[in-house]
Amino acid sequence: MLKINEHYLDLSEGFLFTEIARRIDEFTAKYPDRDLIRMGVGDVTLPLCDAVIDALHKAVDEMKDAATFRGYGPEIGYEFLRQAICDHYAKRNIHLNIDEVFVSDGTKGDLSNILDILSRDNVVLIPDPVYPVYVDTNVMEGRRILFANADKENNFLPMPDRSVDADIIYLCSPNNPTGAVYGYDQLKAWVDYAIEKDAVILFDAAYEIFVADPDLPRSIYDIEDAEKCAIEFCSLSKTAGFTGVRCGYSVVPHTLVYGGIDLNSLWMRRMTTKCNGLSYIIQRAAEAVFTDEGQAQIMENIRYYQENAKTITGALDELGIWYTGGKNSPYVWLKCPFDMDSWAFFDFLLENAGVAATPGCGFGANGEGFFRLSSFSSHDDTIEAMRRLKKVFTDYGK
Amino acid sequence: MLKINEHYLDLSEGFLFTEIARRIDEFTAKYPDRDLIRMGVGDVTLPLCDAVIDALHKAVDEMKDAATFRGYGPEIGYEFLRQAICDHYAKRNIHLNIDEVFVSDGTKGDLSNILDILSRDNVVLIPDPVYPVYVDTNVMEGRRILFANADKENNFLPMPDRSVDADIIYLCSPNNPTGAVYGYDQLKAWVDYAIEKDAVILFDAAYEIFVADPDLPRSIYDIEDAEKCAIEFCSLSKTAGFTGVRCGYSVVPHTLVYGGIDLNSLWMRRMTTKCNGLSYIIQRAAEAVFTDEGQAQIMENIRYYQENAKTITGALDELGIWYTGGKNSPYVWLKCPFDMDSWAFFDFLLENAGVAATPGCGFGANGEGFFRLSSFSSHDDTIEAMRRLKKVFTDYGK
Repeated sequence: MLKINEHYLDLSEGFLFTEIARRIDEFTAKYPDRDLIRMGVGDVTLPLCDAVIDALHKAVDEMKDAATFRGYGPEIGYEFLRQAICDHYAKRNIHLNIDEVFVSDGTKGDLSNILDILSRDNVVLIPDPVYPVYVDTNVMEGRRILFANADKENNFLPMPDRSVDADIIYLCSPNNPTGAVYGYDQLKAWVDYAIEKDAVILFDAAYEIFVADPDLPRSIYDIEDAEKCAIEFCSLSKTAGFTGVRCGYSVVPHTLVYGGIDLNSLWMRRMTTKCNGLSYIIQRAAEAVFTDEGQAQIMENIRYYQENAKTITGALDELGIWYTGGKNSPYVWLKCPFDMDSWAFFDFLLENAGVAATPGCGFGANGEGFFRLSSFSSHDDTIEAMRRLKKVFTDYGK
Repeated sequence: MLKINEHYLDLSEGFLFTEIARRIDEFTAKYPDRDLIRMGVGDVTLPLCDAVIDALHKAVDEMKDAATFRGYGPEIGYEFLRQAICDHYAKRNIHLNIDEVFVSDGTKGDLSNILDILSRDNVVLIPDPVYPVYVDTNVMEGRRILFANADKENNFLPMPDRSVDADIIYLCSPNNPTGAVYGYDQLKAWVDYAIEKDAVILFDAAYEIFVADPDLPRSIYDIEDAEKCAIEFCSLSKTAGFTGVRCGYSVVPHTLVYGGIDLNSLWMRRMTTKCNGLSYIIQRAAEAVFTDEGQAQIMENIRYYQENAKTITGALDELGIWYTGGKNSPYVWLKCPFDMDSWAFFDFLLENAGVAATPGCGFGANGEGFFRLSSFSSHDDTIEAMRRLKKVFTDYGK
């Protein structure tokens, strides 16, 4: 008789976004004439840049002619794109071998799929609060999960605890949901810890482009010895607005060797066996992102979102609300004022300001009492949302 | 200390295609002036049809304007595409619910990923010879594998053996590599067996469009009660030349319930947790395939390949060589003549005719002594390859 993977029954219902939607529906039914501003969206809103659009059209035209048509490509991505990614790292003085770079349809999939090559017996260390995918994909495989507490005291940047034995360590910097960014010394401490424990760091760099401060690392490979203990995952989703286009990449250095086995060869085997590579058309679009023209164009969009983040943090500074993020991240993570819990503040903001965003408790126990605002809305909406926030605060204080 | 998934060490080296490449390199080095014809390719060669090209350009243009730009889409695919797939099935009198259809980047991934939701304790039944992915993905998870012998005696269409207890059953019809196609009664026997054993059939329908004979099933759901025991996987790779574009779909009926758990909800949870959906642009291209215009255009390409298959089977008939496939499949699977084994015939054909194709032994123990020819080459190449085949046969007989 067929047996299901019973670990799936241990998954908690991911009710955060359905509950948000339910409360918003209730609000719009109650106040059909009120204008709602969504500040919770984790998706980009600006369209693709011209360099990417041109590359897409060109690749599509290649596919209509037998002489230039492309069928199956390399499962790990075409060399033209992997080379472009290597060159991009090289500009920041990180030197990768072209076969250490693997192209995929996004970081969510890569972070999930990398677990295939790792035993279910490993102990996993995950920060709390966190992107729920890290937890769920490990629950699905029955791994033991420990949490590293991120909280106000450590500015939501937990540091390693040598008394904890972990084999797989998740780090995300700039962080989703907290927007907090690790410094060089902090990441070096994590690298040292991982090497001491013979563990691997799964480093999620999906938001690296938002790091504006030159004194902050954008890649785990900015840290000495990271190539001995860390896999990096990155994506064009937030970088170049590819959330609906789909392209990501992972970096698995040849120097990652555990018990005599190199992870690069296992990951290569996983990719070649279980997938047939990313669409050629999309790979040409991704290549365009890494040209000088593409980089200039995507940075215009990034600056637009950074301007929004500044509008948000400016309002919070003015109101004296504690937060992390926003300076080197598209997310701002604030302490709910008036001692409200996350859902109470959600309701307060929705009811009084017509602004919807994301309750922090949806990202783990330590998210309770916190709240995530996103900078991916329009300038006008962001400015108006912050105007309303300031008004309800003044009114509430009266 | 990090432990790898040790089952990866049980994988056999997939040396088939590297060995073919090595021998071809040797040949071209030895005979730089001789013309080589490749008849082994499992990839399409005709470009995308106009309806698809137009849909791609249109979708790209939508992505350059904020008003029509699309970010994250539904993880299981947009409704417009899932509805088009449902409508396509409905034309053949198979009625699916829209949330029983899941869009993906291809069948290779789906067939691999479906194993996530199934326990590693299940016993797997796989035909031999077979598409190597079925075996490798189960070896990676340490499942016990039984083989159903496909051979000349059963026309490479193995039937269920009630004394064998299996939980997961792979069927591929039209088959890769053998081109053999099951009839209604044969598939009904498999469905009855699966229901008796409370097993699930993973039905790979990637080549269904090549079924020309109206008396042969093209979907497992053409069989009564299959919705209680079978998941179907299909792809636009061969259907519409999407091998480099990437789009597939799986059908998981709500009626698939094991131990009180429905597989549809587990698969939904898997998809929503581990992926972010297929590129919007590609989904619009796939939608175009299912329009009347798209169907007419892709059928022109299918007829082109079918013409090649006819050229191949005509030559084999003339030479009295035993084969399966070719009539309702792009592959022709022949018994190596002169009692040669697969590699001996590979070398014979390469050396004497300058024709390279695929040794059957690469697909499993039962493939030894057989050989796969593909109909995906050009008309000219196929005709010339068969002319040379006939000539070397006549010469060899002398």
